[in-house]
Amino acid sequence: MDRITPRTLSGFKDRLPNEAIKKREILNRLSEVFESFGFAPIETPHLEYADVLLKRGSKEIQKELYRFKDHGGRDVALRFDLTVPLARFATQHRHSIRLPFKRYAIGSVFRGERAQAGRYREFTQCDFDFLGSDSLVADAEIIAVLEAGFEALGIEEFKISINNRKLMNGLLNSLGYLDLSEEILRIVDKLDKIGKERVGEELKSAGVKDPIPIVELIGLKGSREGFFEQLEMLSSDPMTQEGVRELKELVAILEAMGIRRDRVEIDLSIARGLSYYTGIVYESKIEWCKEIGSVASGGRYDNLTSSFSDEKISGVGASFGVDRLLVAIKRAGLLKERQTPATILGVALDKNSLLYILQALNKMRKNGIKCEVYPDSAKLKKQLDFANAKGYKYVLIAGDSEVVNRKFVLKNMQNGEQKSLNLDDVIFTLKADV
Amino acid sequence: MDRITPRTLSGFKDRLPNEAIKKREILNRLSEVFESFGFAPIETPHLEYADVLLKRGSKEIQKELYRFKDHGGRDVALRFDLTVPLARFATQHRHSIRLPFKRYAIGSVFRGERAQAGRYREFTQCDFDFLGSDSLVADAEIIAVLEAGFEALGIEEFKISINNRKLMNGLLNSLGYLDLSEEILRIVDKLDKIGKERVGEELKSAGVKDPIPIVELIGLKGSREGFFEQLEMLSSDPMTQEGVRELKELVAILEAMGIRRDRVEIDLSIARGLSYYTGIVYESKIEWCKEIGSVASGGRYDNLTSSFSDEKISGVGASFGVDRLLVAIKRAGLLKERQTPATILGVALDKNSLLYILQALNKMRKNGIKCEVYPDSAKLKKQLDFANAKGYKYVLIAGDSEVVNRKFVLKNMQNGEQKSLNLDDVIFTLKADV
Repeated sequence: MDRITPRTLSGFKDRLPNEAIKKREILNRLSEVFESFGFAPIETPHLEYADVLLKRGSKEIQKELYRFKDHGGRDVALRFDLTVPLARFATQHRHSIRLPFKRYAIGSVFRGERAQAGRYREFTQCDFDFLGSDSLVADAEIIAVLEAGFEALGIEEFKISINNRKLMNGLLNSLGYLDLSEEILRIVDKLDKIGKERVGEELKSAGVKDPIPIVELIGLKGSREGFFEQLEMLSSDPMTQEGVRELKELVAILEAMGIRRDRVEIDLSIARGLSYYTGIVYESKIEWCKEIGSVASGGRYDNLTSSFSDEKISGVGASFGVDRLLVAIKRAGLLKERQTPATILGVALDKNSLLYILQALNKMRKNGIKCEVYPDSAKLKKQLDFANAKGYKYVLIAGDSEVVNRKFVLKNMQNGEQKSLNLDDVIFTLKADV
Repeated sequence: MDRITPRTLSGFKDRLPNEAIKKREILNRLSEVFESFGFAPIETPHLEYADVLLKRGSKEIQKELYRFKDHGGRDVALRFDLTVPLARFATQHRHSIRLPFKRYAIGSVFRGERAQAGRYREFTQCDFDFLGSDSLVADAEIIAVLEAGFEALGIEEFKISINNRKLMNGLLNSLGYLDLSEEILRIVDKLDKIGKERVGEELKSAGVKDPIPIVELIGLKGSREGFFEQLEMLSSDPMTQEGVRELKELVAILEAMGIRRDRVEIDLSIARGLSYYTGIVYESKIEWCKEIGSVASGGRYDNLTSSFSDEKISGVGASFGVDRLLVAIKRAGLLKERQTPATILGVALDKNSLLYILQALNKMRKNGIKCEVYPDSAKLKKQLDFANAKGYKYVLIAGDSEVVNRKFVLKNMQNGEQKSLNLDDVIFTLKADV
């Protein structure tokens, strides 16, 4: 028989148990946080009509789309994000959902970009959005979810940097550059990578004669007393003034919600590349892992559903970068390294004691203990080697004499300690150890 | 601006909150069961090299495959099941995994079959497999997981029907039809749909001169005393004899594991269409929902990885049909109908009390209560209408006088009852009600 080389596509990857267990834990904890704020899960297909996806996609996205003809000759594509499908969903089911509508969605998205280290062509997005409300309470709540999400993952040291697009837009309006705003935002977004000087140069090339006010604006950062007064002086343009007022009110709501002051900061360099943001935007970095960039970000958009409907649905949403979170959590050792979700391996010395072990594990499971059985009565050494390789802390051993005496040997693989116990004491010991 | 009609592809569907909440609950409970037996999660990509998937796919599957050329001209396809990717995974990561290896996987698979009522082109599979063990303990454990899975979902009345391919193969061998076995199994698998008589006719057309022994065999069913003796007389072929011995031992292991006797039955009509099964196979039906067919099934295969490697890896695995489970659970009302995961809506009568409500909800969340806020201080009637539409049982109301007195009005939307309470009593009432 001809063999096929087992391989994955470049830019696609498998997750082995150790990583998949961590990812499941992360997504479970984040889902619980979303739900604690009343966000409900929804699902949309991985495959959509290409025109549905393309209407909102940038030129870059269009190039990266996995697009093909299906069996019926339809022009279809794999989704490249979860936001465009949300816009389609909200319009299509407009009569079944009630605004304000809060949903979260977790799933794979696909972009055929050039393969680079750490960049994947299939990756997981974890989005939550609050549709149909213009209230700043909605913006504040998204930021509160970010804080609660980090905390649920055991991450205490992080900073959420907040901006309002209206400040820059007001300034550009007063300078007469509003028509260039998309291009200017794109350049400003590179500040972290290329520095102020190069930003100034690129702005000039883009047609901004005097980039100094823009470069000054993106250098502002703070949360101290007097900072908002400084912002109010940036430009007398009504849009800038409105933007500052919104930021002030947002900070007051965040205080009421109990968000820790040292975790949020106004930072006018935050641009968020995506052109659909129209108001408050934010990014967040983990203090001890800044170099991986923003791990959660989002903002307000005025008209999510414009491709599909005349009805304007505004909203605010954000998303956690699951792969970056995994990197950070791994680095800090916040979740245990484990090959298996179980905590104990059952080891039988002969066929008869195997049945005895199976009975015991059955009862342990009913007591909430996750346990695996070695399925053959193999040599003890072989079974213990297996337990070590899988990282089991405990094994439960039984042979003839254990069966006769209704006992078990509980062996701690870390310190080698062995005890002869009845089943209730085994269960007690394990529950006390968790 | 040109509008795009918001629509999903035929055979693809969205899940609104009510359904997505149920599905999440089902998958969480099943995952917990898998993990309680030591099955670890893994992930593989949605997109694979077409040749990797095609080697094991039947002709039907080949036709149904979503296959296309990617940006690099590679011949790629969306996975049609989770078993072929598992085979690829086990071979590719052979040096990182240790046998026996137990994994579960939950995800979308894609088949471009003709759209029919209740059949989808993208659907969720929920697989668990036990690789690298020839022990019947592995077979028994898969059946124990099925039982535990149903119980975790609140389903008590179900029957797991078990067969062993070796019985039929032994009979076919003694009759001289072993070379026709694949075709014969395919026909026999239709027993439920077309009845004994038509099965006999189709067997004749397939070249079986005397189909009576085959039709008699598939009519056998039981678990009573003496049933195994009856089976032993079916054929003296060693393979049949071995098959009966295995079934007997399996039943003994199931007893030791505490599987309820009335929930399992030997049924020789169970064929399981898939040709890769080689030993014990099973299906399961919910008693009050038999017409939707088997909701969980699986079996033993001898050589999972033959397309990729010379090393033989045997195993046993099964899968829950998530969509069918959803139908059954909905019909029996086993999970609550709900538009939102939250249990209470915060309602503020003015801007100031909105901040007061936000503080309260923040504390409620820390006490494990899921809660949503209405983000504007809209008219009370509008907010209560919203609460009703979303099915909230409780709303928490605050206006000026509540802020002054540090109280809240807790309103039960089902019976209209209202109480003025401090926050601790609100939390106590809600926790007592769950």
